[in-house]
Amino acid sequence: MDEAYMKIALELAEKGRGKVNPNPMVGAIIVKDERIIAKGYHEGYGKKHAEINAFNNAIEDVSGATMYVTLEPCIHYGKTPPCVDMIIKKQISKVVIGMIDPNKLVSGKGAKKLKDAGIEVLTGVLEEECKKLNEIFVKFITTKIPFLVLKTAMSLDGKIATSTGESKWITDTIARNEVHSLRGQLSGIMVGVNTIIKDNPKLTCRIKGYKNPIRIVVDSTLRIPVESNVIQKINNTHTIIVTTKIANISKIELLRSLGVKVLIIKEKDRRVDLKALLLELGKLNIDSILLEGGATLNYSALEEGIVDKVQFYLSPKIIGGEKSKTPVGGKGIDLLKNSYKVKNLTTKFIGEDILIEGYINKEGV
Amino acid sequence: MDEAYMKIALELAEKGRGKVNPNPMVGAIIVKDERIIAKGYHEGYGKKHAEINAFNNAIEDVSGATMYVTLEPCIHYGKTPPCVDMIIKKQISKVVIGMIDPNKLVSGKGAKKLKDAGIEVLTGVLEEECKKLNEIFVKFITTKIPFLVLKTAMSLDGKIATSTGESKWITDTIARNEVHSLRGQLSGIMVGVNTIIKDNPKLTCRIKGYKNPIRIVVDSTLRIPVESNVIQKINNTHTIIVTTKIANISKIELLRSLGVKVLIIKEKDRRVDLKALLLELGKLNIDSILLEGGATLNYSALEEGIVDKVQFYLSPKIIGGEKSKTPVGGKGIDLLKNSYKVKNLTTKFIGEDILIEGYINKEGV
Repeated sequence: MDEAYMKIALELAEKGRGKVNPNPMVGAIIVKDERIIAKGYHEGYGKKHAEINAFNNAIEDVSGATMYVTLEPCIHYGKTPPCVDMIIKKQISKVVIGMIDPNKLVSGKGAKKLKDAGIEVLTGVLEEECKKLNEIFVKFITTKIPFLVLKTAMSLDGKIATSTGESKWITDTIARNEVHSLRGQLSGIMVGVNTIIKDNPKLTCRIKGYKNPIRIVVDSTLRIPVESNVIQKINNTHTIIVTTKIANISKIELLRSLGVKVLIIKEKDRRVDLKALLLELGKLNIDSILLEGGATLNYSALEEGIVDKVQFYLSPKIIGGEKSKTPVGGKGIDLLKNSYKVKNLTTKFIGEDILIEGYINKEGV
Repeated sequence: MDEAYMKIALELAEKGRGKVNPNPMVGAIIVKDERIIAKGYHEGYGKKHAEINAFNNAIEDVSGATMYVTLEPCIHYGKTPPCVDMIIKKQISKVVIGMIDPNKLVSGKGAKKLKDAGIEVLTGVLEEECKKLNEIFVKFITTKIPFLVLKTAMSLDGKIATSTGESKWITDTIARNEVHSLRGQLSGIMVGVNTIIKDNPKLTCRIKGYKNPIRIVVDSTLRIPVESNVIQKINNTHTIIVTTKIANISKIELLRSLGVKVLIIKEKDRRVDLKALLLELGKLNIDSILLEGGATLNYSALEEGIVDKVQFYLSPKIIGGEKSKTPVGGKGIDLLKNSYKVKNLTTKFIGEDILIEGYINKEGV
């Protein structure tokens, strides 16, 4: 029964996706005499916590009731007062927690304070699901490095374009809409400058109700055409051009005058040092990035160890071609034992396309 | 209820896989008073039909009972007497048939003869499943052209080898065993001569209880080294080397003296005409071929329209490399609208690898 209630809390939490970053998604329900008497979730960054929303939405007196909450209630004064104090004040008698707060500074303290107040506490119910829900938050709060999702779309035989370079579109509308909603859920979207030069994309999220991600262009020598769509300010979107000290100063100034943020990052092999870049983006509170890079940037990202999750969309077609472009290029690994292992693989049909999703195994071979 | 019984008949039929080619797999059960009183299946090429085996296995009198059979009972004298006559003689009162015989010469005649004898006949129960079970037979009996399965194993990013050419093994043991059992289920296995030169494979089926497929090597200019493993006669395996009139006559004679069949097929663009080859192989009663070609042969096979089914094994690793080999090479298609469409896609985990299976859509775009 605890799991069934936690599942409802998880579904509530999910509603905050794309709206709360870099806060975690949290859902909470209050149960009394086997009836759900309150529901709440964290609805947006800076807004009330899930627990407080549940109290506010309660349809009867909550004293003596059980609260189910996906993440350990907070004890700190942030933008809102501590939830733990409110739970105690409202005389909740039992709190069931999905996962303990991953932030080491407070981890376990909320649960302890509740126990000290005589409240029964149960932790770890649907813990894996709760951790997966907040995989971005868990990484960002513990490392301050953005969670990076490498996404690509290819034919069944691993091609991202035909022999003549046609690449629009490999996948079907349904899959492409799914990617657009992902753009709206993550804080940033990253591409290489070659993609800008070749496709001149807008990199916005075309799904209503989602915000646009911050557009991040990796451009080591600052080759970006100033008339590119990403330089234009559409609907309050922000753009960060990432370059190195090799870049031409006057072009940097020109871009800045157009309202674009230009980040100068140290170089590595005459290219932007991607690890250093991720640290910088973390400082800008960007907790998550969708990498829609070309083959070269994708390989560099893997080499630099900045990829957390991969999404391969496979379209039910075969393209062939010895020289047709593939999703991950660069130098490539030398020996199979050195390949990048992907764990926790799942497959799912998105319309007629197949989405294969997994996580880069960072624990080595 | 009919479907439940037909499912049991289908499971029985399945036991003949790899043993009955080019006959169809067939299963039959006899049901009386809601009890299964007999089971039978076609156990091997030239052996008794499923219906006869069911009669022989009956544990009580079958008169007045219902027979469930996956394929329309035969009316012709072949290696065995017609099953229809036996069904009438045994006084079966109802016959439920999965699919009508696809052989146009006899299609529907068995069912008609049963009806004429006053037996109730129901057809088309789990028809799709029955057709899928015998997809090889259905194609071969109607076209005399072998059913061809293109199989490949690649990394998640569509590479079949690392940048240095290491390709053993992309997939895990469980997937490789699955491929070996497939080798045992199909009549032939086809590779290009480059695979022989590079890997010198045996191309046998290493799973007990299965026969070895006929090894077919496409070698337009007869470059095969005479000391290759496929030239050696291991456990009664047969090898066919397919070449063109460009080939050196004395090498042809040498190979023939080693017990290898050499087929000389007309050329197309200085290569073996694959369509003509398939017709020849059909004449040799080879009803099914597993194509484990390299990238070039795979593309040619698609171009020539000889591929019926594709199997992509995806391993949970990323290899990268602009120049790493991919599963389908050649010239490649020019425009996306001309890509080879794959229909009825399914996905399945084989150990840690993913098998994506589908059928080439031959009806055009």
